Amino acid sequence: MEFNNLFVLAPVAAVLALIFAYLFYRQIMKVPEGTEKMKEIAHAVRVGAKAYLKRQYVVVAIFFILTSLFLVFLSFVLKVQSRWTAFAFLTGGFFSALSGYLGMMAATNASARTANSARTSLNSALRVAFRAGAIMGLVVVGLGLIDISIWFSVLHYLVKYDLRLTTVTLLSFGMGASLQALFARVGGGIFTKAADVGADLVGKVEAGIPEDDPRNPAVIADNVGDNVGDVAGMGADLYESYTGSILSSAALGASAFYATKYTLNAVILPMVVAAVGMIASIIGIYLVKAKEDASQKNLLNALNRGIYGASLLIIIATYFIIKTLLPHNMGIFGSVITGLIVGLIIGKSTEYYTSSSYGPTRFIAHQSLTGPATTILGGLSIGMLSTAIPVLAVAFGIIIAFWAAGGFSQPILGLYGIGIAAVGMLSTLGITLATDAYGPVADNAGGNAQMAELPPEVRKKTDALDALGNTTAATGKGFAIGSAALTALALLAAYIEEVRGGLIRLVNNGWVFKDIAKVVGSSDVQAILNWLHHATIGDFMRLFAVNLMNPKVIVGVFLGAMMPFFFSGLAIKAVGKAAGEMVEEVRRQFREIKGLLEGKAKPDYATCVEISTKGAQKAMVAPALSAVLAPIITGLILGVSGVMGLLIGALSSGFILAIFMANAGGAWDNAKKFIEEGNYGGKGSEPHKAGVVGDTVGDPLKDTAGPSLNILIKLMSMVSVVVAGLVVAYHLL
Amino acid sequence: MEFNNLFVLAPVAAVLALIFAYLFYRQIMKVPEGTEKMKEIAHAVRVGAKAYLKRQYVVVAIFFILTSLFLVFLSFVLKVQSRWTAFAFLTGGFFSALSGYLGMMAATNASARTANSARTSLNSALRVAFRAGAIMGLVVVGLGLIDISIWFSVLHYLVKYDLRLTTVTLLSFGMGASLQALFARVGGGIFTKAADVGADLVGKVEAGIPEDDPRNPAVIADNVGDNVGDVAGMGADLYESYTGSILSSAALGASAFYATKYTLNAVILPMVVAAVGMIASIIGIYLVKAKEDASQKNLLNALNRGIYGASLLIIIATYFIIKTLLPHNMGIFGSVITGLIVGLIIGKSTEYYTSSSYGPTRFIAHQSLTGPATTILGGLSIGMLSTAIPVLAVAFGIIIAFWAAGGFSQPILGLYGIGIAAVGMLSTLGITLATDAYGPVADNAGGNAQMAELPPEVRKKTDALDALGNTTAATGKGFAIGSAALTALALLAAYIEEVRGGLIRLVNNGWVFKDIAKVVGSSDVQAILNWLHHATIGDFMRLFAVNLMNPKVIVGVFLGAMMPFFFSGLAIKAVGKAAGEMVEEVRRQFREIKGLLEGKAKPDYATCVEISTKGAQKAMVAPALSAVLAPIITGLILGVSGVMGLLIGALSSGFILAIFMANAGGAWDNAKKFIEEGNYGGKGSEPHKAGVVGDTVGDPLKDTAGPSLNILIKLMSMVSVVVAGLVVAYHLL
Repeated sequence: MEFNNLFVLAPVAAVLALIFAYLFYRQIMKVPEGTEKMKEIAHAVRVGAKAYLKRQYVVVAIFFILTSLFLVFLSFVLKVQSRWTAFAFLTGGFFSALSGYLGMMAATNASARTANSARTSLNSALRVAFRAGAIMGLVVVGLGLIDISIWFSVLHYLVKYDLRLTTVTLLSFGMGASLQALFARVGGGIFTKAADVGADLVGKVEAGIPEDDPRNPAVIADNVGDNVGDVAGMGADLYESYTGSILSSAALGASAFYATKYTLNAVILPMVVAAVGMIASIIGIYLVKAKEDASQKNLLNALNRGIYGASLLIIIATYFIIKTLLPHNMGIFGSVITGLIVGLIIGKSTEYYTSSSYGPTRFIAHQSLTGPATTILGGLSIGMLSTAIPVLAVAFGIIIAFWAAGGFSQPILGLYGIGIAAVGMLSTLGITLATDAYGPVADNAGGNAQMAELPPEVRKKTDALDALGNTTAATGKGFAIGSAALTALALLAAYIEEVRGGLIRLVNNGWVFKDIAKVVGSSDVQAILNWLHHATIGDFMRLFAVNLMNPKVIVGVFLGAMMPFFFSGLAIKAVGKAAGEMVEEVRRQFREIKGLLEGKAKPDYATCVEISTKGAQKAMVAPALSAVLAPIITGLILGVSGVMGLLIGALSSGFILAIFMANAGGAWDNAKKFIEEGNYGGKGSEPHKAGVVGDTVGDPLKDTAGPSLNILIKLMSMVSVVVAGLVVAYHLL
Repeated sequence: MEFNNLFVLAPVAAVLALIFAYLFYRQIMKVPEGTEKMKEIAHAVRVGAKAYLKRQYVVVAIFFILTSLFLVFLSFVLKVQSRWTAFAFLTGGFFSALSGYLGMMAATNASARTANSARTSLNSALRVAFRAGAIMGLVVVGLGLIDISIWFSVLHYLVKYDLRLTTVTLLSFGMGASLQALFARVGGGIFTKAADVGADLVGKVEAGIPEDDPRNPAVIADNVGDNVGDVAGMGADLYESYTGSILSSAALGASAFYATKYTLNAVILPMVVAAVGMIASIIGIYLVKAKEDASQKNLLNALNRGIYGASLLIIIATYFIIKTLLPHNMGIFGSVITGLIVGLIIGKSTEYYTSSSYGPTRFIAHQSLTGPATTILGGLSIGMLSTAIPVLAVAFGIIIAFWAAGGFSQPILGLYGIGIAAVGMLSTLGITLATDAYGPVADNAGGNAQMAELPPEVRKKTDALDALGNTTAATGKGFAIGSAALTALALLAAYIEEVRGGLIRLVNNGWVFKDIAKVVGSSDVQAILNWLHHATIGDFMRLFAVNLMNPKVIVGVFLGAMMPFFFSGLAIKAVGKAAGEMVEEVRRQFREIKGLLEGKAKPDYATCVEISTKGAQKAMVAPALSAVLAPIITGLILGVSGVMGLLIGALSSGFILAIFMANAGGAWDNAKKFIEEGNYGGKGSEPHKAGVVGDTVGDPLKDTAGPSLNILIKLMSMVSVVVAGLVVAYHLL
């Protein structure tokens, strides 16, 4: 068994990240939580969030147990999978959930503390909120990389699987992470948006009370929602992205460098890049410092210094890592740079289409002059138009990264380069996630300040922090979206690897495949095994006729392209339905609880939390089930070529639909804010009402369905990988 | 040169259809137009519609001339296309425009006459409106088939091209038809929806005056829009679908039966099916008769008798046609039956999702209780969910039709079967289009009655006719959408044929292709030519590596999937913008023209027509240009494999997006009508206002962007076919 010293970096950096996360947690907990009222509110939100997550985990656990039984059946009865699959799957789900949970605990503990710090200065509030975000970032990357390190060591060094088998088995770990992330995003997303929409429509529009007003019965649900959706959901989501990119690249590395002396190097390369990125992130987090009397611009510069500093470090480090591990493939470094450029372009494009400093969002604001219908049409059209630049950027990125890493004649090397590019984009997740996750903390701090009736300047400061976060988050989101597309592509290639593994397993078990025998030109088992071990991706494409004139591929593409629409429809319908119930309930309370609007009586917060909980619980199973079943059913009917069509269809349509929804939602949100700044009549005017309608429509698009699609795409790929052995052995056509 | 007597059926049936269209026109013109006021209004709409079309044709003509120059350059300078391309392209555009124009003339002449007949009885009004629709139907199929017959005779019998070359050259005729149809749908769609939205938002919602009230300044623009958008646009659209399905099947027939004694039979089969369908349609039209005192239900039965009668006739006839022409391929009949089943399923699914008799539309109506935001979310989610059944139906259809016609080992035969299935679905277009096109005539008759201040029972009758049309139109739309998907698939295969033709042309001109030489195993020109003549689709897939792991294919799929979004974004934005201007103008007239709302002063209709005209003129060029340039640029950079990826991506995402938009729009429309029937508060209530917002958002989705996507998909395929020679000779990667 070979060993490479650099591999040690992975567990070491991971432990380091967790230690720093713990240190930051202790730092935060030392900050006082403020007045009794503030503590009480923070406690209520914390309890509500924990209570919801517990109930969510029960549903998820049942789903996971059933899926594990299915995997056990595949491994031990049908013998079409490695025996470690079910166990790896469960741990992936567990650690993904843990990431979200720990991140959320940090966030709920930080909100009142951020608000309390904002009573003294903007800078100290930034420190608390940003530290809370950093905990989330470091927990996600730390847990992710330590799990990968352990599993890799177990399978490769203890069980002594070869590298190809080790890395594809690891992908079932990824399936667990993806499935849990999907539940977290969809469930949390439905919870938070039902509460948000309900609170806004009745509170802000009908009753005319401000956001986060304690008289609003849905206000606690709304704040709980921010934590279970935006924080816990985001944590699980990025855990999935992060581990997914590393695992898929490792699998491709094992295959691209099969039977060369660089196999191990290629497999550990993504882990080493991630490890160094983690250290760069910790350094970056310490670079985020500002003077006590810093202006908002200074603070933005401080955040950017952290992000850019970490990025620069990782670029330089990656060059040397590749030079050390794969000295003859420096083109891969070109792929990494390409990936970063693609991420930047997507981030800038997001900013252009969703910031009120530019034309598109202002166009929507202008359309609000003629009412809600033209506002909606404006947002829909801007969202659709905004898909062009990211798609062109990804297209450009794929071509260049392929070309740089391997040239078109060696797709497996090109795909490996693409996988590494995704790893590079996510390597500084420790800090980019910190800038993303601190937004909800600041948002909740504002809610806390409002409900605790702190002076308005406190709210102003937390709002400033929130706005700050939105700007830096655009870049982080660009990287997350871009890396999702690249990772999904790498998974597509990993799928072929698993098909290879499945075929080898079956041939070893005595199965006879006539198609392969025909291609190999012999039905001798040894000759077939030899062919299978050395076949290129191109050989497999021919074996399964994965070309665009194969009706099975075409049908797969159709079905795949439909999945994101169907999935989004389920999620949006669930939000609409739960939000409708929430509106009725809030209206009922205003009507029936005497003295509520005058502040003399207390609203019934618990019923609103219950409506969101039930809405999320009931509605999250169908989308998850459809995501898991689609690749299995397609595979059992159409076989390998149908599955590959399905995955490409889902990837392309899901990527585009996700950008459409994210940008339309973001643009509506900021168009409304632009009106609230006093344009086109300002707050309370008819255009403002139209703007609120736009924002409300955009909410479930950008915060429930949109971010879930990135997970959906990868989950479908992971499921395909895990059931590849089944599909190869049993399919109808 | 072989000849088959059955071919004569095509020109004969076509002439017959045109003769019947003329007879119906004379019948209609004998009906009196009614009062002076009615004549005056009909005249104003007719003049406005003609004036708009003239201006549209000027823009289109410039675009066509430039495109022809490009095609001349390809044919005569680069020598990568047949010399007939530019001319065939121009005639396709001309006849497509003529179909729309003649259909619109019939419709504008019939509206006042329908209203006038409605003063006596529902049945006589039905007869006039349905005859006008039938004129449109027969003109479209008659002109389509006569053009195909003439071009086929010229190229095959006079120029003496072989059948493969003849049929692919004919596809450039299809490109002209598609391009003109795209302009008609987009331009007309923007015109009509800008006027409609503007008229509704200010007239109905703000001023509270009824639909089609003569005091509304946008009312003439609205009525003109119905004719240039819904009638002329639909005519050009279906001309394109009809000829596209015949031409693509003919091209596949030439290839699938290459060098057998059935080649000519396979090529003329779609034309013969179309010819017999035309005769069946004429018979069907005569079956639509009802007693003078018929109830609405009787009338519906009368319409259905016509449609089902014609369909039954064509099914029986098709069996015998296939038995005569391709006796050894009776499986193709199975494909035709499969196609009809798919069309029926899509039609039923459309009905389920958009009729207020079922759950989905009622859910949207219920969501209106909590305001416009939840109404919009309801429609978006229903639209997204509604994509599942049509996609599953098409997936099922593709698999079964392939399998029936050729089995998976012979994709070219399977694709030919799919093409013939599309021809079968559209063969009774003469009558199905009649039931579709008479809706706008009835709608306009209602407008005429309202503006001419006829008694309300006249309006009631025209509304009943309109409602009647909506029910029968659902099936017709199912066939149109389903056939578009199947035709686009057939075109994908035809593309490979044109690539073959392009390669042969270039090799004959002395080009050397190393890749082919390598595959053939010889660089001898004669050996290469021989290989090219006999290579199967599978051979070409391998030659160009059109598999799902080729980065060029993947990038193509991404770009293709993005195109329908980008295109729809442009169209919806144009409607939103022009509608916004229209709203401002109508508001201005209500404000500035004294006595307008009291009916004492006349509004300035012309300015509103001008706003719609300018909005359409300016905005239709960019979408058309993007549709034409996308395949050319993709091809020049990525080559054949990139183009095929582009087409599959555009087909899948465009098909799904089109269904999403059509069904969301339809469901919003009918949810609003459901509320107007007195549910959830009825007319004038807050839920009704929310319903109007939903309907307004849905308008450009279902009537501008949605129907254009079917054309977009095919236009991109046609352009790819026409520039295939260029792409084969010159491409970057």
